[in-house]
Amino acid sequence: MEIKRIIEKIKSDIPNLNGIYFVGCGASCADLYPAKYFIEHNSIKLRTSLYTANEFNYDYPKALDKDTLVITCSLGGETPETVSASKLAMEKGATVISVTNKPNSSLAKNCNYLVVHDWDGKYSLKLDKMIKVLQIAVEVLNQYEGYENYNDINSGFDKIYDLIDQSVSTVVPEAREFAEKFKDDEVIYLMSSGPTYKVAYSFSICLLMEMQWKNSGSFHDGEYFHGPFEITDENASFILLMNDGKTRAIDARALEFLNRFNAKTALIDAKDYGLSSIIPNSVVDYFNPMLISAILRIYAEELATVRNHPLTKRRYMWKLTY
Amino acid sequence: MEIKRIIEKIKSDIPNLNGIYFVGCGASCADLYPAKYFIEHNSIKLRTSLYTANEFNYDYPKALDKDTLVITCSLGGETPETVSASKLAMEKGATVISVTNKPNSSLAKNCNYLVVHDWDGKYSLKLDKMIKVLQIAVEVLNQYEGYENYNDINSGFDKIYDLIDQSVSTVVPEAREFAEKFKDDEVIYLMSSGPTYKVAYSFSICLLMEMQWKNSGSFHDGEYFHGPFEITDENASFILLMNDGKTRAIDARALEFLNRFNAKTALIDAKDYGLSSIIPNSVVDYFNPMLISAILRIYAEELATVRNHPLTKRRYMWKLTY
Repeated sequence: MEIKRIIEKIKSDIPNLNGIYFVGCGASCADLYPAKYFIEHNSIKLRTSLYTANEFNYDYPKALDKDTLVITCSLGGETPETVSASKLAMEKGATVISVTNKPNSSLAKNCNYLVVHDWDGKYSLKLDKMIKVLQIAVEVLNQYEGYENYNDINSGFDKIYDLIDQSVSTVVPEAREFAEKFKDDEVIYLMSSGPTYKVAYSFSICLLMEMQWKNSGSFHDGEYFHGPFEITDENASFILLMNDGKTRAIDARALEFLNRFNAKTALIDAKDYGLSSIIPNSVVDYFNPMLISAILRIYAEELATVRNHPLTKRRYMWKLTY
Repeated sequence: MEIKRIIEKIKSDIPNLNGIYFVGCGASCADLYPAKYFIEHNSIKLRTSLYTANEFNYDYPKALDKDTLVITCSLGGETPETVSASKLAMEKGATVISVTNKPNSSLAKNCNYLVVHDWDGKYSLKLDKMIKVLQIAVEVLNQYEGYENYNDINSGFDKIYDLIDQSVSTVVPEAREFAEKFKDDEVIYLMSSGPTYKVAYSFSICLLMEMQWKNSGSFHDGEYFHGPFEITDENASFILLMNDGKTRAIDARALEFLNRFNAKTALIDAKDYGLSSIIPNSVVDYFNPMLISAILRIYAEELATVRNHPLTKRRYMWKLTY
């Protein structure tokens, strides 16, 4: 069933929706963040939260009941904590939409509604997960409360896939330069703000720590000046993800400080790829994370190549029981 | 005015409270987290969010209006972003409670209600900020919706200060051992869960990065298995903050993995200090962050001593305009 129809059905069954919770693990938790940010900033009624699945499992909110919508997400659909969270939410009477690439997975079998996202093929399809979850949030808001920029954001959804594929096609040279420059660094920090904040987190814990066994940390660049900036000097390495939208000034302030003290900085700026000239200004914020994630993917691939450490290499994941 | 009276007055002025937002920067943002966690998990009506102040300033939620309560927090009361957030919230018609140690500060002058917290003196007073913010959240919930464990949590508030001071009095030897063992490590990671999650964050960005110029990262230990655990081996250093409460099983799972692969691990376990034998079980979760923060303070002091790098030493903060 397409997303719009799913939400129409849910609205007829749950006229008094009290909240929308997003639940996942690792990259699939971070991929839920733009949708959670969208609801948090645009809804005037709906409660919303984002949980790593096991926190939800061990300490779910008291408000979880038959009037709650829960979005669970897992690429392969077999993440045990997320499958448990889906089951728990249904036991409590909540309505669950699962978002996964695998229509026969455990997650797909334990939900009220299934949304299957793409993954293989063009780079834009790796962002289909994040985009579809945002589409769910937009439909919920528009149908329950109305959303004044509904047409604008739908035009954004129409354009973002092509923009991503065009953008990544130009980025290999600078990604290679990044990889050569940063490959031996002891620690690489990631920073961003707004809807892109968890893209910094996801690159840090998944692409660098998990897939490259490289030390990393991440934080909101509004927080940079309240602690982390004290480590800044020419020996500190940062990747700054710069939004083309409302929180750009926060990112720019961090960039200025990094440059002032000669920190080793890789800048990925959504404006360089023309985001706001293609996506309507009223909704541009919410498309930064998809565009920037796609560009970061090329950065990670080039880093893997120069370090001779494939992104698929693991020592524990998929190999052990834990 | 005492906290209970403040909330009584607010309730008479705002009978239909729609949400409670918490706004601060750095450690004062992290110190708001237990209260936000409390509302998120126990309220069935109130919307709640935690913002670093500049994100609030540049992209405040649409729901911010005359029916909203905003809690702003800054130790010295002069953090510019937080003062701006207080002003912005009041301009939008929201009611603002500011929590600060300085009753004549800019933050104290830009709010509807002022709560002054202690700081100097016994170690427990360094947690008075976090405790008072939680007390505000508890009063809001109890007066607007009722809170079944209200008496239990108030008995916890009566006992936590003494428990903190007793606990820190025994901890210097193990803190010194930690400091000797970890002082030269390239990177130290912090992990926790539940209401204590942001204590891990705060120690990482403030005590280590800001006050010791040491590389660090932090994440939820439920997320550890979805990325960061791939860096685990005998050369990786972790501080694990273990809750005595609902999410303890998540912490324990991370500890087991760290030990299995001989990671260098410092464990701070609230159970070792008898938290759940003193605080009623129904509310014990919410007192972990205060107890564990106090113990971590001793760890930081010992680290500063063995590294000959005072916690007050800065190269940018308080010295430059930025």
